[in-house]
Amino acid sequence: MIFPDIPLSKLISFVEEDSQFGDITSNAVIEPQSCTAVVSTRQHVVLAGIAECVRLSEWYGLSIKKSGADGTPYMAGDVILEIYGSAHTILLLERTLLNILGRMSGIATQTRTLQDVVRSINPKCKITATRKTAPGLRLMDKKAAMIGGADPHRFSLSDAVLIKDNHRVLVRVDEAVRRARSAGAYHRIEAEADTIDDALMIAEAGADIILLDNMAPAEVEQTLVLLKEKGVRDKVVIEVSGGITGENLASYAPLAIDRISMGSLTHSITNADFSLDIMKQA
Amino acid sequence: MIFPDIPLSKLISFVEEDSQFGDITSNAVIEPQSCTAVVSTRQHVVLAGIAECVRLSEWYGLSIKKSGADGTPYMAGDVILEIYGSAHTILLLERTLLNILGRMSGIATQTRTLQDVVRSINPKCKITATRKTAPGLRLMDKKAAMIGGADPHRFSLSDAVLIKDNHRVLVRVDEAVRRARSAGAYHRIEAEADTIDDALMIAEAGADIILLDNMAPAEVEQTLVLLKEKGVRDKVVIEVSGGITGENLASYAPLAIDRISMGSLTHSITNADFSLDIMKQA
Amino acid sequence: MIFPDIPLSKLISFVEEDSQFGDITSNAVIEPQSCTAVVSTRQHVVLAGIAECVRLSEWYGLSIKKSGADGTPYMAGDVILEIYGSAHTILLLERTLLNILGRMSGIATQTRTLQDVVRSINPKCKITATRKTAPGLRLMDKKAAMIGGADPHRFSLSDAVLIKDNHRVLVRVDEAVRRARSAGAYHRIEAEADTIDDALMIAEAGADIILLDNMAPAEVEQTLVLLKEKGVRDKVVIEVSGGITGENLASYAPLAIDRISMGSLTHSITNADFSLDIMKQA
Amino acid sequence: MIFPDIPLSKLISFVEEDSQFGDITSNAVIEPQSCTAVVSTRQHVVLAGIAECVRLSEWYGLSIKKSGADGTPYMAGDVILEIYGSAHTILLLERTLLNILGRMSGIATQTRTLQDVVRSINPKCKITATRKTAPGLRLMDKKAAMIGGADPHRFSLSDAVLIKDNHRVLVRVDEAVRRARSAGAYHRIEAEADTIDDALMIAEAGADIILLDNMAPAEVEQTLVLLKEKGVRDKVVIEVSGGITGENLASYAPLAIDRISMGSLTHSITNADFSLDIMKQA
Amino acid sequence: MIFPDIPLSKLISFVEEDSQFGDITSNAVIEPQSCTAVVSTRQHVVLAGIAECVRLSEWYGLSIKKSGADGTPYMAGDVILEIYGSAHTILLLERTLLNILGRMSGIATQTRTLQDVVRSINPKCKITATRKTAPGLRLMDKKAAMIGGADPHRFSLSDAVLIKDNHRVLVRVDEAVRRARSAGAYHRIEAEADTIDDALMIAEAGADIILLDNMAPAEVEQTLVLLKEKGVRDKVVIEVSGGITGENLASYAPLAIDRISMGSLTHSITNADFSLDIMKQA
Amino acid sequence: MIFPDIPLSKLISFVEEDSQFGDITSNAVIEPQSCTAVVSTRQHVVLAGIAECVRLSEWYGLSIKKSGADGTPYMAGDVILEIYGSAHTILLLERTLLNILGRMSGIATQTRTLQDVVRSINPKCKITATRKTAPGLRLMDKKAAMIGGADPHRFSLSDAVLIKDNHRVLVRVDEAVRRARSAGAYHRIEAEADTIDDALMIAEAGADIILLDNMAPAEVEQTLVLLKEKGVRDKVVIEVSGGITGENLASYAPLAIDRISMGSLTHSITNADFSLDIMKQA
Repeated sequence: MIFPDIPLSKLISFVEEDSQFGDITSNAVIEPQSCTAVVSTRQHVVLAGIAECVRLSEWYGLSIKKSGADGTPYMAGDVILEIYGSAHTILLLERTLLNILGRMSGIATQTRTLQDVVRSINPKCKITATRKTAPGLRLMDKKAAMIGGADPHRFSLSDAVLIKDNHRVLVRVDEAVRRARSAGAYHRIEAEADTIDDALMIAEAGADIILLDNMAPAEVEQTLVLLKEKGVRDKVVIEVSGGITGENLASYAPLAIDRISMGSLTHSITNADFSLDIMKQA
Repeated sequence: MIFPDIPLSKLISFVEEDSQFGDITSNAVIEPQSCTAVVSTRQHVVLAGIAECVRLSEWYGLSIKKSGADGTPYMAGDVILEIYGSAHTILLLERTLLNILGRMSGIATQTRTLQDVVRSINPKCKITATRKTAPGLRLMDKKAAMIGGADPHRFSLSDAVLIKDNHRVLVRVDEAVRRARSAGAYHRIEAEADTIDDALMIAEAGADIILLDNMAPAEVEQTLVLLKEKGVRDKVVIEVSGGITGENLASYAPLAIDRISMGSLTHSITNADFSLDIMKQA
Repeated sequence: MIFPDIPLSKLISFVEEDSQFGDITSNAVIEPQSCTAVVSTRQHVVLAGIAECVRLSEWYGLSIKKSGADGTPYMAGDVILEIYGSAHTILLLERTLLNILGRMSGIATQTRTLQDVVRSINPKCKITATRKTAPGLRLMDKKAAMIGGADPHRFSLSDAVLIKDNHRVLVRVDEAVRRARSAGAYHRIEAEADTIDDALMIAEAGADIILLDNMAPAEVEQTLVLLKEKGVRDKVVIEVSGGITGENLASYAPLAIDRISMGSLTHSITNADFSLDIMKQA
Repeated sequence: MIFPDIPLSKLISFVEEDSQFGDITSNAVIEPQSCTAVVSTRQHVVLAGIAECVRLSEWYGLSIKKSGADGTPYMAGDVILEIYGSAHTILLLERTLLNILGRMSGIATQTRTLQDVVRSINPKCKITATRKTAPGLRLMDKKAAMIGGADPHRFSLSDAVLIKDNHRVLVRVDEAVRRARSAGAYHRIEAEADTIDDALMIAEAGADIILLDNMAPAEVEQTLVLLKEKGVRDKVVIEVSGGITGENLASYAPLAIDRISMGSLTHSITNADFSLDIMKQA
Repeated sequence: MIFPDIPLSKLISFVEEDSQFGDITSNAVIEPQSCTAVVSTRQHVVLAGIAECVRLSEWYGLSIKKSGADGTPYMAGDVILEIYGSAHTILLLERTLLNILGRMSGIATQTRTLQDVVRSINPKCKITATRKTAPGLRLMDKKAAMIGGADPHRFSLSDAVLIKDNHRVLVRVDEAVRRARSAGAYHRIEAEADTIDDALMIAEAGADIILLDNMAPAEVEQTLVLLKEKGVRDKVVIEVSGGITGENLASYAPLAIDRISMGSLTHSITNADFSLDIMKQA
Repeated sequence: MIFPDIPLSKLISFVEEDSQFGDITSNAVIEPQSCTAVVSTRQHVVLAGIAECVRLSEWYGLSIKKSGADGTPYMAGDVILEIYGSAHTILLLERTLLNILGRMSGIATQTRTLQDVVRSINPKCKITATRKTAPGLRLMDKKAAMIGGADPHRFSLSDAVLIKDNHRVLVRVDEAVRRARSAGAYHRIEAEADTIDDALMIAEAGADIILLDNMAPAEVEQTLVLLKEKGVRDKVVIEVSGGITGENLASYAPLAIDRISMGSLTHSITNADFSLDIMKQA
């Protein structure tokens, strides 16, 4: 599995956001000089964002002497990046690099933890991210979740059909599925079911994925039984969602479902804690 | 207090990020029609992001029938936005609006809670945000923190001098303060002190703000005593930082300090929970 | 069926491309004045691009007095747009409007013609566009093809999996399908088959769509027979491609296939012929 | 003759248009590895777009082992580009490279064919492109036509004056020419003539170029005779336009005219057919 | 004569350059309120930039109650703009509006003064601007010069051929003119002559414009005599340039030349002095 | 002192502004070849812009053989840049390089001259730039002034509070200072005083900087005496402004003030005169 690249222009824009008129501190107080800096983690972390940091550092003329790998777990104190070059440039990038690493690794670490919980119970089931990402950071957040082991789910409104409650106010769900099928053959079709009957209707209309939203584990189980009875269980992917957190995840994981989606993976994150330290010269 | 506007082009880019090739669901399944949608909060919230949502909705041709106010607290169930217009447009914007509101109100709500803790103990002290914001969302995150009641702190590397540990590896802190003072008179100068002696040296070199980093409350107190003895306490703003969270905040608040900075305000957030519901027509 | 909007900023960029330093002709030779202009078609056309022209004209302060509808057929001489406003603005936009209409309607018209051929023979089969679009005009070209009645196919590398010959040089196709299935549940998986055996292997590996590339009609037929015998025909969508043009289309259309993809829909187009005429004032 | 460069940022935008969330196929199914790919033509072609492909490939870290030359004719089967590097990167760029080459070479090839027809009959006469280019691709389309041997004509509304029918509805053509002459000395002035009398009036008003629009060959000839009699033929460039295609070109070419403009060069193109093939490793 | 519009997105970028994180003064100290502001000139001025100010103000929601006209002379104390709307918005735009007006009117005023000198001596001669404009402000500077009465000259490297000394190091000037003529018929061809012989050679090679660079008035006169003798004077436009300023302009103006180009029009300007005053409410 | 970098994308945009459709002169008349060019100054100059020219040249593939240093004075005739590479590229960049150098060095040279005047009289006093910069060139203009030795003053509305006359129409100045102090501790607060009493009120309200606007030297002196008597002189920075030019600067310099701000540093500049010459090959 390879992960998509954030465009360089976007990464540069993060630095420019932080320095429209330059770094007035370093420009005023530091003599021109080269130095080495190490970035290390202050906690257990599943690393993500290293590709972005390397790319950005190199664009600004720094050289990378050593670097950790995206997706690999590290322990508190581990050095994950060693950078050499202009002290001014390193200080210019410091906060941006740490913000990228902190956010992406924070997402990846939490995702990995939850995915490990699920996998240990039900190896066929995966957690998935949602579109509840920070505005403008969709790709970054999805990539971090993928590095953590999640299915990225649809990336945007353009790449998969998902018929939700708001659509269902305006059109019957089975009719909606049929319209979507007729509109195009190249994108998956998913529809949200609030009841067991919904789920059956959606499956029979030909959707690829059924989203069982806000159902208790028992209700999910009943739905699966019904779908099996009707011979449609194997024709659909079953996703459950709605208020699933680290706390109740273990009660959903044993169900014979395929995907558990969790908005919190990307909308409620705790940055991982990294530090960048300039080395004293011998 | 008025808050800065996020540029419209940036808000639009959030919608375009979510719909490069359009909303394939609504385009396929919904007939052209107008409708009303209400956005309501599912939790207690200090609202932030409403100005952005109104601006974005109106740009896309929707009309706002009712709207809550940034900075105002709302209860679970409160309607904070009522929108009228094309169903397709409302569905196109739904997730972007909720992501903006969720992130900004999440930040504002947490900030307000913490600021209230501090104010009730020490009315002269304010919590402040840091530059640990989501990449590309500096203004949005800072604005949300301001709405929550925080001092925004410096916005970027360009608007205030802050001499930190990494600078101090390369230059003595008192010399750094002097260089900064000589470089320009129009930006504040802050320096980080790790020890009581540091703090005194920084004050005497003429900095405006001393950042007491990673000091226990007792050490902060000793520093304040020393600065007072030396007659420099009133010439500087005292900021404390380093691992201060909701849990230990109350042990710092009673100190005679001016600012408590907390990276978690913007780097480790829990989105506030809002929903957008299209109304069934009578 | 509603079609996606081209972002306004992109439409404006087309005008700016044509007038970096203004319209030196009109600026020099025409007095400020208002006038009416009519855009009419000089040929039979399935109209596409009208939404873009209306949006762009209104942004530049013109008012639309009458307009045709995207997707509707018009005859030579039909007025499809009547615009009122500043003569300078109309002349500034003239070529951009005609270029948008010409390209999009050219694509839509050709697509409709071919789609009608297919539909009259095999109502279950649809032609589809490809990613062989003009660089930078992906959405515009796909939208025009959709208006003409085609399935848009995948929009980009991000929204569907398509395992082609170049992938097969590096990995076995059945293994590739399995890896894609494991990577994500929310995007369709298609693979290219060059032989009958390929097709069966792909179907059995669990792909959603089989692309029969460069097969003669008889070979396609044999493939369909085999897939049916093996009980997998109904589990997959069958797309044929490779050198299919208006001339040989009728020999593929009767086959029990689902999609016929044609790169020529968007890469080899004949602009539809429109004119914009400023009306003499009475 | 050297040809202008398309800005790199524009070329990159073409790749990003095709991969907002990455290449989900290659990322899922291909192991990281390096390989060689050859791009070859499947038809006779006057090559155009090679400079763009080389620039783009190198920006993405690929190395070019061999490359054809813009403007040179190649035969079906000729290798025109050999690229070495990351398989993922090659697959990411494949469609963009082929779309650039296909469009530009399609334009160049058709232009060269038509220009050769004209040159063989009338070596002083050149065909010229128009502003009927794909929106956003003005420079690319004009460059391709130049590579094919055409005069690019004016690039936009900003670089030459062209007084057309729509201007003439609002101002007399001779007055318009005089105004244009008075406005600036650094841009050519052309005006459209629909009749022989128009042509004389335009020449006498001091235009540099007369556009004989929609005149039959005989009428063009009469116009030339009149202009010669009046002693103004040599003071102006004569361009003919209006419905001139490959079919009737030979009837215009023998006339003592300077330029034949053909919108079809850039608005109605047939992409040249190239393929990119990843080489099996020995 | 109408003047080209600066794109709105560019005007907005000027405001954003001045307020990345908002206007921290007004946001902190002013209550939300509406007010009227008047912009007046503190000196005699030929007004330029008013179209840009009106456009920008209206985009930001302000209304224009009264406005002066581009190209019109005003006296010290004249009100040239009266704006009504949010006090915060007016203060946000204040400096940008004044910078636009100051620069553009500064250019227009100086240009008009010099052009009036020339016209009073030699009505057929015009001064012209050059490409020595502020980087990024080419259109703005050229527009201001046009409003002042200058010929804008070529706008960029793309719209006219100008063969200068540096080209002449690499190719003979007559050969260069011939190559340019063969390359395209739609752009003027100018070449720089340093000697009288150069001028003749250039004229005979078929250039449209001869640039007599750094010649004393007497040498210009001799050149004109020679060109007349050789019968080519009327076939070319004669431009003189090189160190011509307000001081020596009157010694060039009486010559029978067509254009006098002056880099100082746009590279060495004195901003016109305007003030914006918020009115006290009655 | 290190100076901030102009973003590369902005520098590139300057070249693209000058060559939307390429350099039609060089492309038509010059054979592909490499050459050396030297940039030299035609006047005494304090060099600024060299970092930008080097960066831009290298981006376009040129190599720098020799270069002067920003901030260093050079004499007429001195070579400040020697460039080697493609003749076409050098000619493409020529005007942009000269425009950058001319503007930035023009600003730096004038600034240095004025700063030297002040320093020789009053070593504690510095001149400062203002926000009266060319639109879009804030950073470039400020950087040039810094290179010349000026304090850059605030960069934008976001980095320092400055309460001016227009604010004072809407709020009392002492109240405004108090509101600003309460809003944030990380940005300096300055207020404009028109009278001696204003100055005292501002100092007592706790501003950091007092701007004495349009006061005659004697009035400034009286103000300083009063502030001293009241014991507040040392708590504030004193800036004078308003109609201070090279002519009356010497009458302000001896006052015991800290800063003299001059809008003319950046709004009314005379470009420094540089030339770029391509060398004849031996």
